[in-house]
Amino acid sequence: MIAGSPRYLEDFHLGDRFVTAEATLSREECIAFARQYDPQPFHLDDAAAAKSLFKKLSASAWLTLAVAMRLIVESGFLRESGVVGTGTDEMRFLAPVYPGDTLHVESEVLELIPAPAGKRFGRMRIQNRVFNQDGVCVVSYIPNLSVEARPQP
Amino acid sequence: MIAGSPRYLEDFHLGDRFVTAEATLSREECIAFARQYDPQPFHLDDAAAAKSLFKKLSASAWLTLAVAMRLIVESGFLRESGVVGTGTDEMRFLAPVYPGDTLHVESEVLELIPAPAGKRFGRMRIQNRVFNQDGVCVVSYIPNLSVEARPQP
Repeated sequence: MIAGSPRYLEDFHLGDRFVTAEATLSREECIAFARQYDPQPFHLDDAAAAKSLFKKLSASAWLTLAVAMRLIVESGFLRESGVVGTGTDEMRFLAPVYPGDTLHVESEVLELIPAPAGKRFGRMRIQNRVFNQDGVCVVSYIPNLSVEARPQP
Repeated sequence: MIAGSPRYLEDFHLGDRFVTAEATLSREECIAFARQYDPQPFHLDDAAAAKSLFKKLSASAWLTLAVAMRLIVESGFLRESGVVGTGTDEMRFLAPVYPGDTLHVESEVLELIPAPAGKRFGRMRIQNRVFNQDGVCVVSYIPNLSVEARPQP
């Protein structure tokens, strides 16, 4: 993905796909994030996690989503400031994420709605899927974005 | 909310409401989070933010959601480990969140589905709304939870 020039609504097409780089979650990051934002025992403590549904220490789903956001921003897919998230639909936590897992995101343009006459922004819905190193989709979600249309000359 | 004793699916009722404590987002936390997880210029830099849709530095929506998670965990509403998030529907970013804003969460039980015969877990959907200090709902979403049913004697 070439960074730099702005990308307008008209530059996206239905079915466009992009794949981000990867990020590996360290145990330290998982525990630090959980301590600050999701202090449930099974995200913090091995003994408590052993007794939980996932049998071992797992990452907060909100950390997975935050890392996915960073990967998407760094990919350059949503470059420039003419893109604003307005919501997210159908977020599904499909499999646990563990310290040491390596994640990446695959996205696809699902829906494009032109800007109404006289308005600057149209809408785009994308399907985001976060995969781990084994090819398992751990989280899927459908962000709704408000995207600037190309300025008329 | 009394901490300690576990809470089973049967302990929740349609329309049950709870309100969390408050948390104030510092400018330092907003920028540190954005640098690590949402490095878009309008979350990092005053000059870039001034030119953005929100006119000044705003917090990442993922920080707002992470802080909401902490407030909910600390409220004790979802105590014990017999509750697992399976997804979230209809997440809407309704208003920007700025450094210095004080947030709290209000939740309501929307839907309860008993555990199928022979299964340990039923399902619960709750409506979460995050409010700022002016009473503006900044984010709303509907977590889907898998909740342990009371063990049969």
